[in-house]
Amino acid sequence: MPNNKIGGHYSQAYDEELQQAVDRLVDMGGLVLQQLRDSMAAFTTADVVLAKQVKKGDRQVNSFEVDIDEHCLDILARRQPAATDLRLVLSVLKSINDVERIGDQAKRIAKTLLKDEQGSRPSAEQLAELNGMSAKVQLMLQHALLAFQQIDADKALNVLREDKAIDDDYSRIMQQSLSAMMHDSQQISVSLQISNVAKALERVGDHSRNICQHAIFLSKGRNVAHLNDDELQQIVEKKRD
Amino acid sequence: MPNNKIGGHYSQAYDEELQQAVDRLVDMGGLVLQQLRDSMAAFTTADVVLAKQVKKGDRQVNSFEVDIDEHCLDILARRQPAATDLRLVLSVLKSINDVERIGDQAKRIAKTLLKDEQGSRPSAEQLAELNGMSAKVQLMLQHALLAFQQIDADKALNVLREDKAIDDDYSRIMQQSLSAMMHDSQQISVSLQISNVAKALERVGDHSRNICQHAIFLSKGRNVAHLNDDELQQIVEKKRD
Repeated sequence: MPNNKIGGHYSQAYDEELQQAVDRLVDMGGLVLQQLRDSMAAFTTADVVLAKQVKKGDRQVNSFEVDIDEHCLDILARRQPAATDLRLVLSVLKSINDVERIGDQAKRIAKTLLKDEQGSRPSAEQLAELNGMSAKVQLMLQHALLAFQQIDADKALNVLREDKAIDDDYSRIMQQSLSAMMHDSQQISVSLQISNVAKALERVGDHSRNICQHAIFLSKGRNVAHLNDDELQQIVEKKRD
Repeated sequence: MPNNKIGGHYSQAYDEELQQAVDRLVDMGGLVLQQLRDSMAAFTTADVVLAKQVKKGDRQVNSFEVDIDEHCLDILARRQPAATDLRLVLSVLKSINDVERIGDQAKRIAKTLLKDEQGSRPSAEQLAELNGMSAKVQLMLQHALLAFQQIDADKALNVLREDKAIDDDYSRIMQQSLSAMMHDSQQISVSLQISNVAKALERVGDHSRNICQHAIFLSKGRNVAHLNDDELQQIVEKKRD
């Protein structure tokens, strides 16, 4: 999808190269989102075949990252971009790193099932809780990629704030699984599986948060990593006029 | 420490800017290494004051990252580097991301103590095992930074291989703490503390591995993320002649 904030160079080929960097990032994000969905479906239904497919699919994610990385390096070397173009290339470079790590988390969820194939299974209630968290995480990732694609700092800030609800889910699930294993040692193996999946989902939330920060950097020209919500708000509102 | 592989531009100021990027990365690495040492000392001796200091010190790591990030962006924007210079700036940008995440892991170790201040403590044997792993991890990080600073692909490949021993330590410690909690539910809380510290150290190994990959990219011009050992070996040997 072409973005009217990208382009306007004398060279149409250059415009296309920049647009392509963003498009490929979004495509890579779509692939990783599918990996995440599949890994949760596999874990939920104990589908070992699907889990193995996710594990194998991670290689595709990795080669996607290398391809985009090389595309961006090529732009930097040949076009020597400045200002917004430079920021665009750098934010894509940073974002693919986060997207690749989200892929690793999907693989981790798949491996949680594969490692414990014969083990006891979480209850329907526990699975529902994880899937509720996963739905939020998937939505956040989708929104983060959209905010990036649209170079929309306001949207990125709103999406970034979605991470709070995910962290709350994480704390609750971890607390429950800790207390389950404290009370019943039969629950240890299942509790560790659940903790592992919850931790993976929480990490996906963090990486989606990072993608939002890269979108804000792209839009506003300021590195906003490690800023608190008030500081972020100020930067996002500042240059709007 | 000046590196004879960096520089040789008409502009001495430009040479100095590039060297400064590497020097600051190494300084940031030194700070993070100290954070890691302190976090392990705090965990080992249950030193709550030191753990709080590590937690607070992470802010300094974060602002270090932002400073270097801005320094690199400034070089990219003003100097429009090409070839090796471009690779140098990009590898520093990627490496500070890994170093910052190592800082997060030091904080995580400190927080493991702070969260469980009143809880039971690991045995002397368990602490010795973790400290053995930590010593390897610290050495690997030091070596990775040195390989980067010296732009030495051979050294980087050797350091990267040190990660295997760390992963082995990790698997063994995780196995032990799992079996400890399975056999005695009184051990659950301590086992979770140990798993958490071991996981943090294992992540530091992974990030040190990434720094080695960035050093190889810098030296050889090839993105080597996700390559296996044989492929890496080929690339490192290839352009040496």
